[in-house]
Amino acid sequence: MAWPMSGVLLGPLFSTEAMASVFSDAARLQAMLDVEAALAKAEAACGVIPLAAVEPIASACNAALFDLEALGRAGVGGGNLTIPMVKALTTLVAGRDAEMARWVHWGSTSQDIVDTGLVLQIRAALPLIDADLDALCDALASLADSHADTPMPARTLMQQAVPTTLGAKAAGWLSGIGHSRTRLNEAGKAALALQFGGAAGTLASLHGKGPAVATTLARELDLPLPDLPWHTQRERFADLGCALAMLVGSLGKFARDLALMAQTEVGEFSEAGGDGKGGSSAMPHKANPVGCARILAAAKRGPGLASTLLAAMDQEHERGLGGWQAEWQPLAELFGLAAMACAVGSELAAQGQFHAEAMRANLNITSGLIMAEAVTVALGERIGKSAAQSLLEKAARRAKAERAPLAQVLAAEPEIARHFSPADLDRLLDPPTYLGAAPEMARRVAKRYHDEKRRRGV
Amino acid sequence: MAWPMSGVLLGPLFSTEAMASVFSDAARLQAMLDVEAALAKAEAACGVIPLAAVEPIASACNAALFDLEALGRAGVGGGNLTIPMVKALTTLVAGRDAEMARWVHWGSTSQDIVDTGLVLQIRAALPLIDADLDALCDALASLADSHADTPMPARTLMQQAVPTTLGAKAAGWLSGIGHSRTRLNEAGKAALALQFGGAAGTLASLHGKGPAVATTLARELDLPLPDLPWHTQRERFADLGCALAMLVGSLGKFARDLALMAQTEVGEFSEAGGDGKGGSSAMPHKANPVGCARILAAAKRGPGLASTLLAAMDQEHERGLGGWQAEWQPLAELFGLAAMACAVGSELAAQGQFHAEAMRANLNITSGLIMAEAVTVALGERIGKSAAQSLLEKAARRAKAERAPLAQVLAAEPEIARHFSPADLDRLLDPPTYLGAAPEMARRVAKRYHDEKRRRGV
Amino acid sequence: MAWPMSGVLLGPLFSTEAMASVFSDAARLQAMLDVEAALAKAEAACGVIPLAAVEPIASACNAALFDLEALGRAGVGGGNLTIPMVKALTTLVAGRDAEMARWVHWGSTSQDIVDTGLVLQIRAALPLIDADLDALCDALASLADSHADTPMPARTLMQQAVPTTLGAKAAGWLSGIGHSRTRLNEAGKAALALQFGGAAGTLASLHGKGPAVATTLARELDLPLPDLPWHTQRERFADLGCALAMLVGSLGKFARDLALMAQTEVGEFSEAGGDGKGGSSAMPHKANPVGCARILAAAKRGPGLASTLLAAMDQEHERGLGGWQAEWQPLAELFGLAAMACAVGSELAAQGQFHAEAMRANLNITSGLIMAEAVTVALGERIGKSAAQSLLEKAARRAKAERAPLAQVLAAEPEIARHFSPADLDRLLDPPTYLGAAPEMARRVAKRYHDEKRRRGV
Amino acid sequence: MAWPMSGVLLGPLFSTEAMASVFSDAARLQAMLDVEAALAKAEAACGVIPLAAVEPIASACNAALFDLEALGRAGVGGGNLTIPMVKALTTLVAGRDAEMARWVHWGSTSQDIVDTGLVLQIRAALPLIDADLDALCDALASLADSHADTPMPARTLMQQAVPTTLGAKAAGWLSGIGHSRTRLNEAGKAALALQFGGAAGTLASLHGKGPAVATTLARELDLPLPDLPWHTQRERFADLGCALAMLVGSLGKFARDLALMAQTEVGEFSEAGGDGKGGSSAMPHKANPVGCARILAAAKRGPGLASTLLAAMDQEHERGLGGWQAEWQPLAELFGLAAMACAVGSELAAQGQFHAEAMRANLNITSGLIMAEAVTVALGERIGKSAAQSLLEKAARRAKAERAPLAQVLAAEPEIARHFSPADLDRLLDPPTYLGAAPEMARRVAKRYHDEKRRRGV
Repeated sequence: MAWPMSGVLLGPLFSTEAMASVFSDAARLQAMLDVEAALAKAEAACGVIPLAAVEPIASACNAALFDLEALGRAGVGGGNLTIPMVKALTTLVAGRDAEMARWVHWGSTSQDIVDTGLVLQIRAALPLIDADLDALCDALASLADSHADTPMPARTLMQQAVPTTLGAKAAGWLSGIGHSRTRLNEAGKAALALQFGGAAGTLASLHGKGPAVATTLARELDLPLPDLPWHTQRERFADLGCALAMLVGSLGKFARDLALMAQTEVGEFSEAGGDGKGGSSAMPHKANPVGCARILAAAKRGPGLASTLLAAMDQEHERGLGGWQAEWQPLAELFGLAAMACAVGSELAAQGQFHAEAMRANLNITSGLIMAEAVTVALGERIGKSAAQSLLEKAARRAKAERAPLAQVLAAEPEIARHFSPADLDRLLDPPTYLGAAPEMARRVAKRYHDEKRRRGV
Repeated sequence: MAWPMSGVLLGPLFSTEAMASVFSDAARLQAMLDVEAALAKAEAACGVIPLAAVEPIASACNAALFDLEALGRAGVGGGNLTIPMVKALTTLVAGRDAEMARWVHWGSTSQDIVDTGLVLQIRAALPLIDADLDALCDALASLADSHADTPMPARTLMQQAVPTTLGAKAAGWLSGIGHSRTRLNEAGKAALALQFGGAAGTLASLHGKGPAVATTLARELDLPLPDLPWHTQRERFADLGCALAMLVGSLGKFARDLALMAQTEVGEFSEAGGDGKGGSSAMPHKANPVGCARILAAAKRGPGLASTLLAAMDQEHERGLGGWQAEWQPLAELFGLAAMACAVGSELAAQGQFHAEAMRANLNITSGLIMAEAVTVALGERIGKSAAQSLLEKAARRAKAERAPLAQVLAAEPEIARHFSPADLDRLLDPPTYLGAAPEMARRVAKRYHDEKRRRGV
Repeated sequence: MAWPMSGVLLGPLFSTEAMASVFSDAARLQAMLDVEAALAKAEAACGVIPLAAVEPIASACNAALFDLEALGRAGVGGGNLTIPMVKALTTLVAGRDAEMARWVHWGSTSQDIVDTGLVLQIRAALPLIDADLDALCDALASLADSHADTPMPARTLMQQAVPTTLGAKAAGWLSGIGHSRTRLNEAGKAALALQFGGAAGTLASLHGKGPAVATTLARELDLPLPDLPWHTQRERFADLGCALAMLVGSLGKFARDLALMAQTEVGEFSEAGGDGKGGSSAMPHKANPVGCARILAAAKRGPGLASTLLAAMDQEHERGLGGWQAEWQPLAELFGLAAMACAVGSELAAQGQFHAEAMRANLNITSGLIMAEAVTVALGERIGKSAAQSLLEKAARRAKAERAPLAQVLAAEPEIARHFSPADLDRLLDPPTYLGAAPEMARRVAKRYHDEKRRRGV
Repeated sequence: MAWPMSGVLLGPLFSTEAMASVFSDAARLQAMLDVEAALAKAEAACGVIPLAAVEPIASACNAALFDLEALGRAGVGGGNLTIPMVKALTTLVAGRDAEMARWVHWGSTSQDIVDTGLVLQIRAALPLIDADLDALCDALASLADSHADTPMPARTLMQQAVPTTLGAKAAGWLSGIGHSRTRLNEAGKAALALQFGGAAGTLASLHGKGPAVATTLARELDLPLPDLPWHTQRERFADLGCALAMLVGSLGKFARDLALMAQTEVGEFSEAGGDGKGGSSAMPHKANPVGCARILAAAKRGPGLASTLLAAMDQEHERGLGGWQAEWQPLAELFGLAAMACAVGSELAAQGQFHAEAMRANLNITSGLIMAEAVTVALGERIGKSAAQSLLEKAARRAKAERAPLAQVLAAEPEIARHFSPADLDRLLDPPTYLGAAPEMARRVAKRYHDEKRRRGV
C-alpha cells in the first residue's frame, strides 16, 4: 500500500516511499475529505449551513471509514471520485445525524473537491522534494568548493578538450539544479490555489454568499484564493508539470555526466556500493551505476509526462472532457520521479566516490593533445590564430598517427621551435597550468550558494 | 490488488479489470518466474543442468510464495527485479533440494527474465484488447449498415457543410479503428520474441550450448526465437507503444465526434445512462458523456507515453542505462488505456443512442445554407464554378444577414431565377437528395468488414 | 525570405512576419556576427587583442557580406555554423587588414557564439509577443467588463450546466493567458544570459583575463553575466520552451471555446470575415473559424516541441552531442507559433463577433433543465440536498422523455408543489436570476488587469 | 531554395538536399497542381467536365507559373493553400481558354488536393530513404561478417561486462535498423492512398459519378483507392510519423554506441575526417563525432514530432480544426531527419574507422575482471552458482582494491585453487575464449540479410 503509484514491485524504483505515501489512494481520498470538512466549516461560519452540521460531517471525513476499492469502481460511472465519495460520506453522516446529512458537499462541484484535494497533496509533496534538493545542493556546493582545483579533462562532444576541474563541473551541476529548484518553488507556490466555483464556476447555488464562503474556505485550508475558479484554466498544473520535468532534466544531466565518468575505461566516479547495490545477476565484478540508471530513466519519462499536461490545456468551456482527467496520473508520476531523482541524486553527490587520481591519469592519455589549445593560443599570439591552428592541427594529426607525445612532435617543428624552447613546451603542456577561471568559478558558485542559504535564514 | 497500475482509486478509470490483472504485481512476477521455470526445463533438456533440478525449481516458481513488497524494495539496489527474485527463488529451491539450488537462473541475465516475462504479459494482454475491438467493430459495422441512409449534417471545421449519413460516419470510424487494429496485430505479433542472451548477449556462459538452449527455451515458452538477442534494440517495444497510442488515437477521434454530437445544442447522441453513469454531483439534469471523457483522457495521454518509448531507444551498448527501465511503466499504461478505450468504445457504439430525428432537425437549422454547394454545382454547370460560387456566397451572406431561408433569397436573384424555377430550387435544397456516395460507401465498408471476418473464419 | 522557418508557403500560417524575420537565416547569422564584433571590442578593451583589430572585425560583421547558402552547407562538417562563419569572417577581415585577421573569434568557442547569438534573437523576439499579448489582454479585459452581465450557458463536459456570463468566460481566458504571460516574462528574462566560456567553459585561453573579458562583453551586449557558462546546463532554454508552449496552450483553450461557440448549432461567436477569410473552396456559405484552427494547430504542436527541449537537457560533459543541436529548430518554431497565436488571438478577441442573442436563445433550449440546480438548491434547503437531487433527477428525466418544459413537470410534482408556487418556479427557472458571482468576478478580473497595467506605468 | 524545411543555414544539418527538394515550397505546390491536372483528366474521362478543359488546365498546372510567396500569404485567410492556388490557377486557365476556367478544381475540396499532394510527395520521399538504408545495411552486414570474430568488450550499464565481437554488435545494429526499415516500408505503402471525397467526403457534387471519378483519378495518379475518404481518419499519417521516428530511433541507438566508442578514453571508433569535418573552432586536436551528433539530434527530435502526429488524430467530424494543419510541418521534418540520419549513418558505417587494436587493449584494462563471469560459471559448475558468485564478488573487490590482476587474486584463493590450476585460470581468463555465440550470430544475421536481399532480387 506504500507504493500505489506503480505497484509495489516497480514503485520503489520510480518514487520515494514518502512521496508514494502522499499520492497513495488513502492520501488522495483523505485530501478530498479534508476539503469536504473544511467546506462544511466555512459554510457554517458563513451561515449557509447549520453549525450543527459541522461535527457529523467533519468526523466522517476520515479515509479509513471508506472502502477504497469500491469507491474506485464506482467512480467510473461519473468519471471522477467525488460522486461516489459524496454518496458514501452522506451515508456516514446520516449514521451520525440523519438531519445533517443533507448539508454534505453543499454548493460545491466534483472538480472543486478533486482539484483542491490535489492542491493539498501538492502542498505536502513539495517540501519532500525540497528537503532532498537541499541535501543535494549542499553536497554539490561542498564538491565545488573542495574540488575547485582538482584537475580533470573537460570533454566536448565526448572528446577530451582542455583541462577543467571537478569543482567547476560540480558548480555547473549545482547551478543547473539550483535553477530548476527555484523554478519548482515558483511553480509550486503558484499551484497552491483554492479551487471553488460550484457547478460551473459561478457559485450561484450559494445565493450571494459564494464569495464569502470562498474566502472562509481558503482561510480554513490556508490556501490563497484566486480571482476566479480555474476549472478549465490549467496553467497552474501545466506549469508545475513542466517545472518537475525540468528538475528531472537537470538531474538527468548530472546523472549523465556521472554515468559517463563511471565507465570502466574512464573510472572517475563510482557509486557507493554495499548491500547489493549495483550488483549483476550474471557478473560478480560489476558495480553498476544503478542510481544513475534510475535518474536517467526518470529523465526519459519526464518530457512525455510534461507534454501530456501541456496537451491537456485546451479544456472545453467550464469543465474539460478528457483533458482534466488526463492530468491526474502524469502529475503524480512526475512528483514520484522528481522525488526519487532528488533523493538518489543527493546520495550520489554525498556518497559517490570521485577518483581524482583517475582524472589525473586521464589528462595524460592523449600524450599532450588535450593541451593543444594552450599551445595554439600561445603560438597564435605570435603568428596569428589561424596559422597557429593549422600548425597545431597538423602536429596533432602527426602525434596521433605516430603515437608520439605532442611535446616531441612540436619540438621537431621548426616554426614552433623558433618560438618555444623545450622547457617552454613542457610548461605549456602541463594540464594544471591551464585551468583558466575554473577554480574561481567553482568557488564563487559555492560561496553564492552558501550566502543565499544564509540569507534565507536556513 | 486488481488495479495496480494506478492505484485502486484511479485505476478503474484508466484500465479494464482484466488488463489491470495482466499487469498486476503478481502477474508480473509470475511471468518472470515462468521464464525461470522454462529456462530450467530447457537447460535440463540440453544437458546443461541436471534433470533433477527441474522439479524443485519449477515448483518454487510460484508468485504466491514470494513477498512482493520486499522484492520491490530490494529491486532498488540492482535497478531491476531479477536480482532479488533470483535470490529469493534460490532460497526457496534450497528449501526443497539444497544441491539443486545452484542451477537457478543458470546462464541467464536479469534482462532475459524481465524482457521475456514482459513478452509473456503482452501475449496475455493482446487478446483482451482484440476481443473488445471485435465487439466495437461489429457494432460500428452494424451502425454503418443500418444507418447507411440516415441523413445528418456533415461538418467541416465544426461548421455544417453538406449532408452526409450516420452510416458513412460510422464507416469512417470503423475504417480508422480497423486500420489501427491491423497495426496493433502486426506490432503485437512482432513483439512476441524470446529474449535470451546471457550477460551481454553472447550466451558465452553456456559453453557452446547457448543456441540449443535458446531454441529449446523458445519452444518451451512457445515464443519465436529471434536471430539474436535484442537487449538494446528496442524496436519491438517502441513499435508496440506507437501502435497502442495510435489505437487510442483512433478511439479518440470516435469519442471526439460522439462528444460533439452529444452537446446539448446538437443532441444527436447520448451515452447509455443508468446506474449513476454520467450524473453530476451538482446538477441533477445532466447526462454527461463520461465514456467519451475517459476515452479522450486516454487519447491525451497516449502521445506522451509513446514518445517516451521512442525516446528510450538509444540504449547504450549491450544494456541500457535508464532507457530500458523507462519502458516498463509507459508500456503497461498504454495497454491499460487501450483496453479501457476499446471496452468503453464498444459500449458506446453498441448501447449509445443515436438520435436520427435530431440529425434531421439539425439539417434544417441553416434554413437551406447547408445545401449551398448543391445549388452552386447545379448553377456552376451553367455559368461556371467561379461565378456560381460568387453568386452563392452573396446569397448566403444575405440569407444570414436577413435571417431568410436560402430558397427565398435565391428565388429573388434574377441570375438564378433565369436558370431554376422555384420547384427546381425546392428539390435542389432538399438534403436527402444530396447524399452522394455516402450510403454506398457505408454499405461497402460494412460489407467488406463482414466479408473479411468471415474469411478469417471468425 | 521572410518566412524561413517553414518555407514561404506554410510559414505565414505558423508564424507572424515579424517573428519570422527575427529567426530568418540572415538574422541568425547577424546575431552571431554581433557577438563576434562585441567580443573583439571587449577583448580590445581588456588588452587581450590590439585596439586596431576592432574596426576591421566589426565592419566585417555584416550578414550581407556572407553567402548564407554556402555557410549552411559548410556548417555540416563541424556540426554548427560557427566554424565556417569564422573562416569566412577571417577572410573578410584579412581583406581589410591582413595582420588583424588573426584576432577574429579570439578565445571563444563555437557554442559561445551560437548560444549568445540565439539569446540576442530571443531578446528581439520577446517584445513582439508581448505587444500582441497586450492587445489581446486589453481586448479580453474589455470583453470581461462590457459583458459582465451578458448571460449565456455554462457548459461542463460540453453539456449545458447552469447560466454564466460572457464576461466571466472572458475573465477566465484573461486570467489564464495572463498567467502564461507572466510566466513567459520570467522565463524570457532568465534566458537573457551571456554565454561565454571558451573551449570548455574555463576561459583558459584568455590567460587570467577571462573574467574581465566576460564582464566587458556582457556589458557590451547589455546581457546579464551568469556565474558560469551554461554550455550544457540548458535550464534556460528548456524553461523558455515550456513557457512558450504553455502560452500557446492558454491560447488553445481560448480558441477551443471560441470554436465550440462558433459551431453552426451554437452560433454564439463568429470570426470577423472579409477578404476571403474562412471561405471554402467547395461551399460558398461557410465562414470557417480559420483563426481558431491556426491557434489550435499551434496548440497541438507546442507540447511535442517543448518535450524535445526537455528531452535535450542531458547534454554530455562540457558540450552536448546532439542535445544542443536538437534545440535550435524547436525553439524557433515555438516562437513562431506563439507569435502567430497571440496575433490571431488578439484579432479574434477584438474583432470577433459575440452573439448575445444566440446565447440567450441557447439558455432556453433545454426548456428549463439548465436551471435544475437552482431548483435543487432551493428545494434542498427544505428537504435536503440528496432528496432534492433525486427528485430533480426524476423530473429532469421526465421532462426530457416527454419533451415538456421543466416548469410544467415540476408543477405537477406534489412534493415540489408543496414548497413552491408556480410563480416561485417561474422565478427560480429564469436564467438571469442565477448568475451567482459571475458578473462580480468578471468585473474584478478586468479591474485588476487595468490596475496592474496602470501600476506598471503602461 | 534548396533547404526550405528549416532555412538555408540550419537546413543542411537536419535534412539531405534531395529530401529538402521533395518538401520544398515549389515541390509542394507542384504536387498539388499535379492532383488538379489529374482531376481534370479523370473528370473529362468520366464525362463530368468537357474534354476541352483538360489541356488548358493541365498546361497551367506548373508551379513555375505561380508566385509562391503571394500564395503563402493568401493561404492564411482560408487556413490552407488550396483556395488561393485554385484562384490563381483559374486565372491562368482563363488566360488560355476563358470558357474552360469554370472546370478547375471541379467537385473537389481543399483537403483532397492538400492530402493527395502530400501523398505524392511521400511517394517521392520514401525511395530516397530506402536507398540510403540499403547502403547502410550493406555496410553493416559487411561489418558483421568481416568482424564476426573481432573481440571487444561488451558493456552493460556502460560497465565492461564480458567479451563480445564487433561483428555481433554490427549485427545488432543491422537487425534493429532492418526492423525499422521493414516498418517504414509497410507504413509508407499504407500511406499511399488517394484522398478524394469532395466537400465532406460524400462526392455529392459529382451527381453519382463520384465513385467513377475517384477510380479514374486513382488510376491516373497510380495511387490505391481506399474504401472511403480519410479526411479525419489520420491513421495513415500518424503511423508514418511513428515509423519515421522509430527509424530515427534505431539510427540513434547506432550513433549512441559509436559516440561512446569514439570517446577519447575508449578510442574504438573514429569518424572519417577530412575536409574540415569534426574540427573545433578552438581546439586543433579534436576530431569530433559530428555525424553522430547530427543523428543524435534527430533522435532527440523524433519522439516529439511523432507525438504531435498522434495527438493530432482526434480531428472533428468531417474536417479537422487544427489537427489537420498541425500535421504538415512535423511530417516534413521527420522525413528530413530520417533522410539525414540514414545518409549520415551510411557514411559512418562505410567510412568510419573501427579500431580493433583499441578494442583488444580495452579488454585488458580491467586486469581480468571482464572474465569474472567465465570463472564464475566454471566454478559454479563445481560449487554452485551462488557460492561461486559470492567468491568471485569477493575476489573482484579485492582485485579492485589492491589493483591486482584477477588471476593473481584467484590463484591466492584456496577454494579456487582447489578447482583450478594457474594454467586453467590463464585459459579461463583469456577473452577470445569466451565469445560464446557472438561470431555465429554475427555471421547468421549477415547471411540472412544477403539471402533476403537476393530473394527480393536486388
